[in-house]
Amino acid sequence: MTTKQPDHGARPNILFIMYDQLRFDYLSCAGHPHMDTPNFDRVAAKGVRFTNAYIQSPICGASRMSTYTGRYTSSHGAQWNGFPLRVGEQTMGDHLRREGMECWLIGKTHMKADAEGMARLGLSPDSMIGARQAECGFDVWVRDDGLWGEGPDGFYDSNRSPYNAYLKSKGYPSENGWHDFANAGVDDEDNLASGWMFANADKPANIAEEDSETPWLTRETIRFIDQAKDGWCAHVSYIKPHWPYIVPAPYHDMYGANHVPQAMCSEAERVDPHPVYGAYMQNKIARAFQQNEVRQKVIPAYMGLIKQCDDQLGALLDHLEATGRMDNTMIVLTSDHGDYLGDHWLGEKDLFHEQSVKVPMIIYDPSTAADATRGTTCNALVEAIDLAPTFVDRIGGKIADHILEGRSLLPWLYGKTPEWRDFAISEYDYSATPQAVKLGLEPRDARLFMIFDGRYKMMHAEGGFRPMLFDLENDPEEFDDLAKGDTHKAEIERLYGLLAVWGRRMSQRVTKSEDDIKGMRGASLRKGILPFLVDGSEVPEELTAKYRGKAPAKYTPE
Amino acid sequence: MTTKQPDHGARPNILFIMYDQLRFDYLSCAGHPHMDTPNFDRVAAKGVRFTNAYIQSPICGASRMSTYTGRYTSSHGAQWNGFPLRVGEQTMGDHLRREGMECWLIGKTHMKADAEGMARLGLSPDSMIGARQAECGFDVWVRDDGLWGEGPDGFYDSNRSPYNAYLKSKGYPSENGWHDFANAGVDDEDNLASGWMFANADKPANIAEEDSETPWLTRETIRFIDQAKDGWCAHVSYIKPHWPYIVPAPYHDMYGANHVPQAMCSEAERVDPHPVYGAYMQNKIARAFQQNEVRQKVIPAYMGLIKQCDDQLGALLDHLEATGRMDNTMIVLTSDHGDYLGDHWLGEKDLFHEQSVKVPMIIYDPSTAADATRGTTCNALVEAIDLAPTFVDRIGGKIADHILEGRSLLPWLYGKTPEWRDFAISEYDYSATPQAVKLGLEPRDARLFMIFDGRYKMMHAEGGFRPMLFDLENDPEEFDDLAKGDTHKAEIERLYGLLAVWGRRMSQRVTKSEDDIKGMRGASLRKGILPFLVDGSEVPEELTAKYRGKAPAKYTPE
Repeated sequence: MTTKQPDHGARPNILFIMYDQLRFDYLSCAGHPHMDTPNFDRVAAKGVRFTNAYIQSPICGASRMSTYTGRYTSSHGAQWNGFPLRVGEQTMGDHLRREGMECWLIGKTHMKADAEGMARLGLSPDSMIGARQAECGFDVWVRDDGLWGEGPDGFYDSNRSPYNAYLKSKGYPSENGWHDFANAGVDDEDNLASGWMFANADKPANIAEEDSETPWLTRETIRFIDQAKDGWCAHVSYIKPHWPYIVPAPYHDMYGANHVPQAMCSEAERVDPHPVYGAYMQNKIARAFQQNEVRQKVIPAYMGLIKQCDDQLGALLDHLEATGRMDNTMIVLTSDHGDYLGDHWLGEKDLFHEQSVKVPMIIYDPSTAADATRGTTCNALVEAIDLAPTFVDRIGGKIADHILEGRSLLPWLYGKTPEWRDFAISEYDYSATPQAVKLGLEPRDARLFMIFDGRYKMMHAEGGFRPMLFDLENDPEEFDDLAKGDTHKAEIERLYGLLAVWGRRMSQRVTKSEDDIKGMRGASLRKGILPFLVDGSEVPEELTAKYRGKAPAKYTPE
Repeated sequence: MTTKQPDHGARPNILFIMYDQLRFDYLSCAGHPHMDTPNFDRVAAKGVRFTNAYIQSPICGASRMSTYTGRYTSSHGAQWNGFPLRVGEQTMGDHLRREGMECWLIGKTHMKADAEGMARLGLSPDSMIGARQAECGFDVWVRDDGLWGEGPDGFYDSNRSPYNAYLKSKGYPSENGWHDFANAGVDDEDNLASGWMFANADKPANIAEEDSETPWLTRETIRFIDQAKDGWCAHVSYIKPHWPYIVPAPYHDMYGANHVPQAMCSEAERVDPHPVYGAYMQNKIARAFQQNEVRQKVIPAYMGLIKQCDDQLGALLDHLEATGRMDNTMIVLTSDHGDYLGDHWLGEKDLFHEQSVKVPMIIYDPSTAADATRGTTCNALVEAIDLAPTFVDRIGGKIADHILEGRSLLPWLYGKTPEWRDFAISEYDYSATPQAVKLGLEPRDARLFMIFDGRYKMMHAEGGFRPMLFDLENDPEEFDDLAKGDTHKAEIERLYGLLAVWGRRMSQRVTKSEDDIKGMRGASLRKGILPFLVDGSEVPEELTAKYRGKAPAKYTPE
């Protein structure tokens, strides 16, 4: 299953950069009318831009656990933010380490350790094994999940923030500089103008730009690279352009209301909506983004955050070039999900419209094998779980395809057309959300599945609801839910059939590889299991030799 | 979810007895015309006999891993003999231990430890945690899997046999007394007559009856009971009546050819059989059992083995009575699968006819709450995975129903009619078998699924085959495969729909319970995640208090 690589004995470095909440279409190379992202474009020009890349769950934690494990959320079970990744579940760190490659984390994972499981197995988080279990299989250069919100019940994140420590060391006078400086401005009366409030999104964050999160993490990355021996894998994981939507000068006013497109909404969407979609349209997030003044403040800040990401990517690329590493470093740019930004009457992510579930994915491979595809796009149905096997493949390792559910993208990079999947899957467990409460659902019933075959996209909702269906060929905006009527029963049935195939996938036979099993075939007779012989003449005598000959002693009942 | 128990503060003992390869219908209480099993009947008279109990895979290892974990084989992944149970997967031992009850193993598990996973997590098999991981979550009184076959490549089982050690201590002169005495006779020329050969099945095993496996394990059980403090759970797991089919005197000639029923076979079964069924009909096992002389030798030995099991059960019951434990001990009798014994042209198990996939299940509960149901039968669709939650329920524990996929049987025992499942599932992974080779299947495609709704039983086979379908109401013998023609497309479609529901089940979200999730609902705002506020006025001020007030210091760009 390893893709043949013609021209590099040496393993490349892998620079796996993930942004957070970056929409697929907010890059100039993806055709955004106002964003100018020359550095994303620079990687796209050197590599392949995948135009149909889907994440496996439209929320940070679950999406990342899928990307890191190379497995669907129903397979690894960490189906929402804060749901621990079960102890023993392997990640790209484990898969690469088995092939002799170190895998480092610089930034965010949203991993929640399975403390109960670790305790049950006696694993101390302080041991190296325990630390890797607790950190998603990575070795940690720096971990900072970038969500240092504090409420009456304490911090959202119970870890401590290296970024806050950095700000303190630079003299910012706050225990939570992340909020008070990086993610807040100052109003005209010298009051804190928190980035949590959209009303403040147009203010500059009260921080030196170089001290804000994206440049800080970029410097950490460069510091890592400069000390690393070639042959590293680094997962550089930026929190931005994720909310809070506020950005320091000069990015805070680079874009304005004139750059904000009209929301992609249709009145038809509000007529008899799918109940889950309907509940989401009415939540606090959606209601905020349904206000034009919100979009006109938030979107320019979001764009400024992306612009800052692009500039920092440029700094990183320049450093790779200056240090001669561009020729032996594979670069991957992607995101964990998108952002509705008011499209479809929604904010945030959670559901499966393209704005939420599709992500940018740009891969540069320095191998000459990839020369033929440089600067091209690929519209194959790609899933985020494809990255982990791609990395294993790229370093010439054996893809553990009884564990990894994704597929190597290397053939696409090398101009081949591999046999490929017929559909992409994404899932969403909204059991802990107010929408599930509103719909009266037990936690186990608050689960959504998307199946997309490249044209039709269906959402199945557990709990007794009808599905949703869009025909992206005739309705690329996804305004017309074809499951409202009876016209598309055949398509729906077909997609349910494919979803059933996926449901029966082999996802947990993680202790036996296909090769192991092939090796088992026929082994039991040679290890003495001979139950189905009438008299032994059916098999070679060597197999029965142990069971012939004189009886050792005759037992005589007393 | 815990069933209310009216009359016992104290926890009962749980004596969970599993036989191996015991057919559901080879007991007198189940209507066998020749078997006389007064002790099975004695428990049935005191408890409830479940007449539709299905195991989750018709093979020892996978079936047991399901019974022990309370999870389907596709959920725990140990899908065939010798496929390790992944480290961290919890069993009834873990679930009971969490409730403060010890859980001991006396006999067989067929558990293969996940040595690779344990090494990855740094678990030593010698530590207590490691030993439990390696022994299926049980504490081991004695483990003996009872398959000490030895071939040119060594022993089938790489463990060492306590039973062999016992035989040596008793003076049996052999390194493998299990084979040479317990499972072999002596022919007229004083040669070893191995029990591996069906031709020898009518000979008495060359061993004192009291030294054979079933009495030995019974004595071990009594030894355990006599030293245990009340409130124990013991899994007593006999290897018999599993092959080798040979039994010591006087059981070897209690039954004869006149007690062997005609094989339940129909010529119709051989006409255009399902390809997987066709491959199984042609294997070595099947061809042997298609010979009348084989059945006439093997089945009397099989019956003798059951009769010996029944006598030993009597000894155990007598001991419980004599020591006053019958009033505080729950007794469960079941098996890991059946045995075709030539029915349907087959030997062994592997497929989903009743002879293979249905097992005896008899439960005696000493509680007065169970008085109303004593001596009755229950035809609810029961799965072997129901036992683990039943035990947790019985001791008043909290059933971890985000992990355990079975349901407590206690309501049935207490005369209630709970909301119940609509179908039973069994699965079979035959990837390592000659049949998969013959059918040209990759390991991942050699997987079978049975869905049975109480009337229709369908088998789905991965790999592009048609299904099999039986109507047990009109064809209780399962001779007429209704999927051969076009007449039952609607039933097949309906069953595929149910199988798809099952395929989407939530099986891996094992780190978050339903209650945990209910507790999370609405928590994030109280921990400071406030991203969707226009200006903060949407929520109580306490939630935003940390983000208001005077800015800590104004940052001034230089």
